[in-house]
Amino acid sequence: MRMAELSSRTGVPVPTIKYYLREGLLPPGERTSPNQALYDESHVRRLKMVRALVEVGKLSIAAVRDVLDAVDAPEKIPFNVLGEMQDRLGPIHPEGSGELWEQADTQVRELLRRRGWLADPDCPPARSLVAALATLAELGRTDLIDLVEVYADAAELVAKVDVTKVVRDQGMDDVVEGAVIGTVLGETMIIALRRLAHQDATARLYGVDRSGGDDE
Amino acid sequence: MRMAELSSRTGVPVPTIKYYLREGLLPPGERTSPNQALYDESHVRRLKMVRALVEVGKLSIAAVRDVLDAVDAPEKIPFNVLGEMQDRLGPIHPEGSGELWEQADTQVRELLRRRGWLADPDCPPARSLVAALATLAELGRTDLIDLVEVYADAAELVAKVDVTKVVRDQGMDDVVEGAVIGTVLGETMIIALRRLAHQDATARLYGVDRSGGDDE
Repeated sequence: MRMAELSSRTGVPVPTIKYYLREGLLPPGERTSPNQALYDESHVRRLKMVRALVEVGKLSIAAVRDVLDAVDAPEKIPFNVLGEMQDRLGPIHPEGSGELWEQADTQVRELLRRRGWLADPDCPPARSLVAALATLAELGRTDLIDLVEVYADAAELVAKVDVTKVVRDQGMDDVVEGAVIGTVLGETMIIALRRLAHQDATARLYGVDRSGGDDE
Repeated sequence: MRMAELSSRTGVPVPTIKYYLREGLLPPGERTSPNQALYDESHVRRLKMVRALVEVGKLSIAAVRDVLDAVDAPEKIPFNVLGEMQDRLGPIHPEGSGELWEQADTQVRELLRRRGWLADPDCPPARSLVAALATLAELGRTDLIDLVEVYADAAELVAKVDVTKVVRDQGMDDVVEGAVIGTVLGETMIIALRRLAHQDATARLYGVDRSGGDDE
């Protein structure tokens, strides 16, 4: 198909498609003349995925390119591709120092060991967790640190079902693509649902119809 | 205390503190001379919070200012402050159109009704959920849409404990501050833990020690 049809099939405007081509997010089409190229179903599929990562996942163009490079790696060993993808998805949290950071680091290592999770305590997600726990301690909210166990229970439950869903019998390309989509869109869904559930829990506790203030 | 002490107490460099003051993220100190001002414990507390939202929550300066404006609203009605805060935290997802978007919209409204959640189907988190579901449909991954129920179970569980933890007997300022910290740092923790749990689930399914490729 020509670019105009690729655009109408995906809802992505032609200038945006050209931009993605220049940025290497979309492989070039098969050139038929100096000014024309043909695209196929693989372009439709990839373009929709780029769109999802940018628009819904709010990933930067650079992050999308990095993630797609991991997806396109010729040797697809699921554990490695997942790790590569996670490394490239971001966010990266800076390491801090001092007692509170050491405590948080120990806490994350112990959590992984206690739960028997086959996960790398030095990978970006583990470092993000350390940063969040250390920051809670710096804020004096050590009471909120206990929540990590509840979150880990929820994560364990969710991740098992995620992997079951993503691994289907349609080849490794499909699994890897599903892992990217499932990670990014799943995060959007979980964050949205938690905020909605916060509305519910707060409304039940305080009521929603109050019109007066109660500043303390 | 002077700015130098505020800096050493919080670990935030003086130029960064000056930047936050200019951007209105930190209220001005009490001026004692044209070139000097004094800061107190409320500045220490606020500065740590700004730092947490920027460094760990990865919020933009504009988003932090918006969220703090909601926190500082004189009439603190928990349900309203939570809503204001959620509206300002982002991300905002664009609305799409067409059958798949209408289906996703119906699905979210039915989910809220079925679960009896007191939550607004037109609020930003609900629209984010619609965008994620519609995008999964556009990607042809309707099989992943079912995951919304598992995520909603997890969100319900987590949100109840969150609210119990955040509401403690230290005044409404403390509750509102806890809600902001708990929302933002909690999201960082949950996302990190889910990715770690994905590593575990993938390692168990495929093994971690394989060194050969298996491209289909």
